[in-house]
Amino acid sequence: MKILVLHGPNLNLTGTREPDVYGSVTLDEINTRLVKLGKELGAEVTYRQSNQEGVLIDALHDARGWADGVVLNAGGYTHTSVALRDAVSAVAIPVVEVHMSNIYARETFRHHSYLSPICVGSICGFGWRSYTLGLEALIDRIKG
Amino acid sequence: MKILVLHGPNLNLTGTREPDVYGSVTLDEINTRLVKLGKELGAEVTYRQSNQEGVLIDALHDARGWADGVVLNAGGYTHTSVALRDAVSAVAIPVVEVHMSNIYARETFRHHSYLSPICVGSICGFGWRSYTLGLEALIDRIKG
Amino acid sequence: MKILVLHGPNLNLTGTREPDVYGSVTLDEINTRLVKLGKELGAEVTYRQSNQEGVLIDALHDARGWADGVVLNAGGYTHTSVALRDAVSAVAIPVVEVHMSNIYARETFRHHSYLSPICVGSICGFGWRSYTLGLEALIDRIKG
Amino acid sequence: MKILVLHGPNLNLTGTREPDVYGSVTLDEINTRLVKLGKELGAEVTYRQSNQEGVLIDALHDARGWADGVVLNAGGYTHTSVALRDAVSAVAIPVVEVHMSNIYARETFRHHSYLSPICVGSICGFGWRSYTLGLEALIDRIKG
Amino acid sequence: MKILVLHGPNLNLTGTREPDVYGSVTLDEINTRLVKLGKELGAEVTYRQSNQEGVLIDALHDARGWADGVVLNAGGYTHTSVALRDAVSAVAIPVVEVHMSNIYARETFRHHSYLSPICVGSICGFGWRSYTLGLEALIDRIKG
Amino acid sequence: MKILVLHGPNLNLTGTREPDVYGSVTLDEINTRLVKLGKELGAEVTYRQSNQEGVLIDALHDARGWADGVVLNAGGYTHTSVALRDAVSAVAIPVVEVHMSNIYARETFRHHSYLSPICVGSICGFGWRSYTLGLEALIDRIKG
Amino acid sequence: MKILVLHGPNLNLTGTREPDVYGSVTLDEINTRLVKLGKELGAEVTYRQSNQEGVLIDALHDARGWADGVVLNAGGYTHTSVALRDAVSAVAIPVVEVHMSNIYARETFRHHSYLSPICVGSICGFGWRSYTLGLEALIDRIKG
Amino acid sequence: MKILVLHGPNLNLTGTREPDVYGSVTLDEINTRLVKLGKELGAEVTYRQSNQEGVLIDALHDARGWADGVVLNAGGYTHTSVALRDAVSAVAIPVVEVHMSNIYARETFRHHSYLSPICVGSICGFGWRSYTLGLEALIDRIKG
Amino acid sequence: MKILVLHGPNLNLTGTREPDVYGSVTLDEINTRLVKLGKELGAEVTYRQSNQEGVLIDALHDARGWADGVVLNAGGYTHTSVALRDAVSAVAIPVVEVHMSNIYARETFRHHSYLSPICVGSICGFGWRSYTLGLEALIDRIKG
Amino acid sequence: MKILVLHGPNLNLTGTREPDVYGSVTLDEINTRLVKLGKELGAEVTYRQSNQEGVLIDALHDARGWADGVVLNAGGYTHTSVALRDAVSAVAIPVVEVHMSNIYARETFRHHSYLSPICVGSICGFGWRSYTLGLEALIDRIKG
Amino acid sequence: MKILVLHGPNLNLTGTREPDVYGSVTLDEINTRLVKLGKELGAEVTYRQSNQEGVLIDALHDARGWADGVVLNAGGYTHTSVALRDAVSAVAIPVVEVHMSNIYARETFRHHSYLSPICVGSICGFGWRSYTLGLEALIDRIKG
Amino acid sequence: MKILVLHGPNLNLTGTREPDVYGSVTLDEINTRLVKLGKELGAEVTYRQSNQEGVLIDALHDARGWADGVVLNAGGYTHTSVALRDAVSAVAIPVVEVHMSNIYARETFRHHSYLSPICVGSICGFGWRSYTLGLEALIDRIKG
Repeated sequence: MKILVLHGPNLNLTGTREPDVYGSVTLDEINTRLVKLGKELGAEVTYRQSNQEGVLIDALHDARGWADGVVLNAGGYTHTSVALRDAVSAVAIPVVEVHMSNIYARETFRHHSYLSPICVGSICGFGWRSYTLGLEALIDRIKG
Repeated sequence: MKILVLHGPNLNLTGTREPDVYGSVTLDEINTRLVKLGKELGAEVTYRQSNQEGVLIDALHDARGWADGVVLNAGGYTHTSVALRDAVSAVAIPVVEVHMSNIYARETFRHHSYLSPICVGSICGFGWRSYTLGLEALIDRIKG
Repeated sequence: MKILVLHGPNLNLTGTREPDVYGSVTLDEINTRLVKLGKELGAEVTYRQSNQEGVLIDALHDARGWADGVVLNAGGYTHTSVALRDAVSAVAIPVVEVHMSNIYARETFRHHSYLSPICVGSICGFGWRSYTLGLEALIDRIKG
Repeated sequence: MKILVLHGPNLNLTGTREPDVYGSVTLDEINTRLVKLGKELGAEVTYRQSNQEGVLIDALHDARGWADGVVLNAGGYTHTSVALRDAVSAVAIPVVEVHMSNIYARETFRHHSYLSPICVGSICGFGWRSYTLGLEALIDRIKG
Repeated sequence: MKILVLHGPNLNLTGTREPDVYGSVTLDEINTRLVKLGKELGAEVTYRQSNQEGVLIDALHDARGWADGVVLNAGGYTHTSVALRDAVSAVAIPVVEVHMSNIYARETFRHHSYLSPICVGSICGFGWRSYTLGLEALIDRIKG
Repeated sequence: MKILVLHGPNLNLTGTREPDVYGSVTLDEINTRLVKLGKELGAEVTYRQSNQEGVLIDALHDARGWADGVVLNAGGYTHTSVALRDAVSAVAIPVVEVHMSNIYARETFRHHSYLSPICVGSICGFGWRSYTLGLEALIDRIKG
Repeated sequence: MKILVLHGPNLNLTGTREPDVYGSVTLDEINTRLVKLGKELGAEVTYRQSNQEGVLIDALHDARGWADGVVLNAGGYTHTSVALRDAVSAVAIPVVEVHMSNIYARETFRHHSYLSPICVGSICGFGWRSYTLGLEALIDRIKG
Repeated sequence: MKILVLHGPNLNLTGTREPDVYGSVTLDEINTRLVKLGKELGAEVTYRQSNQEGVLIDALHDARGWADGVVLNAGGYTHTSVALRDAVSAVAIPVVEVHMSNIYARETFRHHSYLSPICVGSICGFGWRSYTLGLEALIDRIKG
Repeated sequence: MKILVLHGPNLNLTGTREPDVYGSVTLDEINTRLVKLGKELGAEVTYRQSNQEGVLIDALHDARGWADGVVLNAGGYTHTSVALRDAVSAVAIPVVEVHMSNIYARETFRHHSYLSPICVGSICGFGWRSYTLGLEALIDRIKG
Repeated sequence: MKILVLHGPNLNLTGTREPDVYGSVTLDEINTRLVKLGKELGAEVTYRQSNQEGVLIDALHDARGWADGVVLNAGGYTHTSVALRDAVSAVAIPVVEVHMSNIYARETFRHHSYLSPICVGSICGFGWRSYTLGLEALIDRIKG
Repeated sequence: MKILVLHGPNLNLTGTREPDVYGSVTLDEINTRLVKLGKELGAEVTYRQSNQEGVLIDALHDARGWADGVVLNAGGYTHTSVALRDAVSAVAIPVVEVHMSNIYARETFRHHSYLSPICVGSICGFGWRSYTLGLEALIDRIKG
Repeated sequence: MKILVLHGPNLNLTGTREPDVYGSVTLDEINTRLVKLGKELGAEVTYRQSNQEGVLIDALHDARGWADGVVLNAGGYTHTSVALRDAVSAVAIPVVEVHMSNIYARETFRHHSYLSPICVGSICGFGWRSYTLGLEALIDRIKG
């Protein structure tokens, strides 16, 4: 089983920006934990980060060819990108939406996600653990 | 560590009502799995279900005295109950919100939750696994 | 054929409160007429009233076991209760919505019903006759 | 007692258009049943159909001179016509609103009726029986 | 100078319907007064009433050929008819909007007029005198 | 009969500001015409202008003691002043609302008037003639 | 004179929950002060608290039989319960609405009260003194 | 193949009204071009224009019997007529929506069409060519 | 202790305007009662009324120098004045908001107050007693 | 004459993703048909696709130097991109908007286009033929 | 060159009220700096402050006679005054809008300005420097 | 002191596109003036332009390492990009928002900026001088 973990804009700064919102664990450390957890659960985890909406779309298109599922934290594009939503709809594999912060405890414009309705499910508010919970949920789902 | 799992209205019918939305695993089975998972993770899980808004509030008040955290699926009250929200705010223990269905893929009135902003985090869309993921997340959170 | 007539909050006061809005026939008299009409149309009518949202939900759940249909006047919960709506969806029997007053000639917040979209049909504005019309419609519907 | 049954736009196609929405009984058959039911209840039923908003208004004006009440299915004009509403207000006889489909289970723009607030009451969702129930309700109302 | 006075839906009942809203002067009397006032001010007044949206549009089209201006009370179509608005825009002569009742003291849906923005001006609330004031204003305007 | 003509903010500049919107007749000239017209119709016209919301309120209060009616152009306060509306309600004499420009052909925020619902009627779009029409309408109204 | 003081959901925790919002005086102490103040003002005060919407409705129904007025703090149900509003309308005795916190300085959903329009008056923001002021106001009102 | 081209309100004035919005080609010329184009593409084109909402509905009903598709420019009724929409739904043949002007570059109320969601497709902004493009698109569609 | 009681627009007419809304006690009498009550509670009460928004702001600024608190009935400015709100924020003394009428039982635009969120608390609906209750609440608050 | 056909995000997957929405003709085939049709109509067609908002903007800037017009399917950016709209405004050549699916029959957020108001015209709902119709319309327009 | 600097309500308290929002520099000091900067840039600066909406309007009217431009901080009237906006439109000289605080980082009702659309430009968020930047911008603009 | 000036989409065309909106000074000239002004004020100015949302985010991330502040004109992304806003929040240096045109005098969708609330301040409407004013303001701010 192969899984893509896709990180959106500004997540490259995780661990160094606004630590009271996003925690102090870096993206590298998160990725390391995800690969390790994937291995334990029988999945090969590949990760990618981009600040470019179009590059994230390209990555989803590319995943159609090899991945069994995607863990997606689209960052700010979550709330504004119909194009990214269309890309998720276009790929025929399950996608799980994750957010480190509790988006419902923040500004109103973060309460709406273009992605939630077309993802399998959503997890938010647990810091880096949102990712590990999301990976676990996705693998369970793929295993059926 | 002691955990309360609190199920709201209509969840007593889980497994027998609209199985394409809520799955075919019964609430009893879910509770059994939660107790077992709790034990594995070092937590004693107690569960309770009620169709009464006020009984759910009472249960939260009661949990102040003995529980370290709550996994809460408030069902339809999620979208309408300020009183339940106030109860969650009133208890000084972490609460995790879970939903079996993907509430963002359903009617618009299910897209708003009075509870999300004051819970630790939210998980939805993974069927009965939303509960187990929520329990795991809560225990991790309490352990710090 | 067995029918449940379910009366929601404040309907126990029917006939004694705001008679210009709700008429002066009491709930007992309405129930008597419904039982009699049911008998004429070949249906056994059982009635229940509660001011508790959760008790109404319980009554609907209970009706799954024995009733062929429900005539439901949910009173004020009509406009606010997702939980009650979910209960109606959860029971696999036809439900007819009735209101004694013309809810569209009153305050704006009474113009929206969470129940209408999932009921068979709605009848409002005919005083106690809304109930008898509703019972007649339901029985016709069940008879097919 | 004399009753006008007034059918609005597209209802001439009833029984032949979208039968899953409007049923397969034709307007002629509905009219026949209404005349028959009227006779049983001591009322002479006249019916009229038009696709013209203004012709419906003319018909209501005309009914002031001879009818004791009106059963009105205004079709699509229900949701858009202030002029028709004004005509209903202008005639000093009771009007009952009926719809064959459950308008609250359809598109949002069908959830608002300009007519409901000024009619005696409303009935929807019971197919052609919405008409017979409406006729029955109207005659009861006129008899007092 | 030639003026068309155009009356919309239900205005044929003026003087006999809801006299507390519209007064007790009949449309015939209003027309007589308008013809007389027109004569005094040097204008030939023609009047027309229809309950049909399309007939009102036809009348406006027709007026392009012979009228110097229009006094228009579009009744309920005021608030709903883009087609009538387009007809007013299409004719290259000044149109004055009048209403007998104070539409701003009535239901919210009467507060918006599709016609106001493209008419010369609007007069409402003075009963039949809204017409005579409107005629006077129109003639003044045409005279420049 | 005594009439107060009350001009609100910026109307002192009439005739010199934005002449394509408000015309080139000055406020003095308008007042002169109103006095003259009043005399012809048997009314003594007093006029007052202020840019101060509170001074306009004071003037309305004062008019309670001596005036039979008021012609009011409240300018920009039309759209924002509840206090002025309350003053109009507080005086027990008829008030006619006038505007020189067609407020419905301008910015959206000019389409709502706090004053319209509690005035006798409204006239707009006829330049300085809005005032003379308003005076005429008011005197007719007072004469009954 | 007999007065019912009715406390809604979560108010049983008063004095122990979120003391910066609700103060540190307990509900028992508040009740004691209300009984004492009632005695001074010639009124017998009875108090009741419930977290159940329906129990609060029952209590209002019951008060019809013996109370001269009600001091009501409906807590979170203030903002969501049409059923409770209907109960207040149904009882023919004056009801005064109180809140300890300043609900207008909190979340937007607390700014609307279903109860305010049908209560005698409202008092909020003075901590436990909102109750004593409300009791005083109610007794004054009943005394006329 | 037989095609109905249906023109709505005010389109009879095309070529003579507001030429900067609608161009200077008359409706007759447009019809001539459509007949000619139809002939080239193997279709017999019939055209009809009415300012009456109900006549347009009648024409659609009639087309059920003989036409293979409809090119529809509903003019102002596009934005206001549920009845026309229902007529389009009721006929079981493909309908293409056309507008000569770019409705999205005009007033906000022209941005919503009741017809678009139930038509095959929409074309706007190309003057009389919107019709020829629409006819071409429709014939292609019918040919499959 | 020194208290300013500040009355806004139209309150000078209290007792003579719309007595069914505002009662028949005059402002002078209210002021007399407030001074007397203040004396009983150990506070010197000064009162001021103005119809001018700016004068009310000046009065609040002035009170910074000598008053321990303010009882404020801002009348119509309550619903429209950000400037007055800013003045209340700018003075570092407690302000209590009062209204004689129940503003929530009146027009929708009276349901929002710019002042409530920054005042200590609000009292409405008790006629002139809203002032005495407000004074009592303010003094209690200042005494701590 | 030179034409740019510009395809936005996810359109590279056309023919392989959601074929019931977008058809089964691939983008390559569409491009081939456009080049061929261009040749027939005397235009040289160049095409470009990108998932990057900025690359699409660059392409429009570039086209200023050599193209006579643009056929633009901006995909998901249609509904969210002010930057793309500004790019269309910035280039002084006609742009035609096309969509393969009927965007008005899909989710509400697809009903608004930032591009429509500043394009020549719009075509949607005809599958790949939306492109050929758009190309034809654009060439006609450029030819004048 | 002559410049008017006009300060609106509550700005007289600048430097003493809410210093974390508005800074601790007093209005006198700001005026001194503006006069000095004006001198350096070749402009004579006059300043005026009022808490009265009407006095600010009067000041703008007066400036028509002698000033070449205005720097305007309308304080709370920014968000509520159509009358002030009309005054700015009425004077034929450039006006620059300034705010000391970042109004977009504060309450929602401060995000809309009636003045911005008709001013040359806006500057906010730089404390007293918003004034000096605004003066500089205005003088540059006048110099062309 | 080091400053980044960051230009968003379409600004590369400044001076050549819509000169009545954006002026005729080119971006190169603006950059030259900014470098020169920076030098005068003791700051080294670096500039960058991109039409790519993600590249702008990258540039902000990069500036964390070396810049003391940023002058940002985000063009169309101002109104749509949460991702860019998050980038501004993520960098711990002051950012000043500038726009050449008066965005409040243009389309409604330009009136909201995702960036304003988290920037130091905003300047708009002064053409290229918005940049120089912004640079000046930023340097003043950094100097403290």
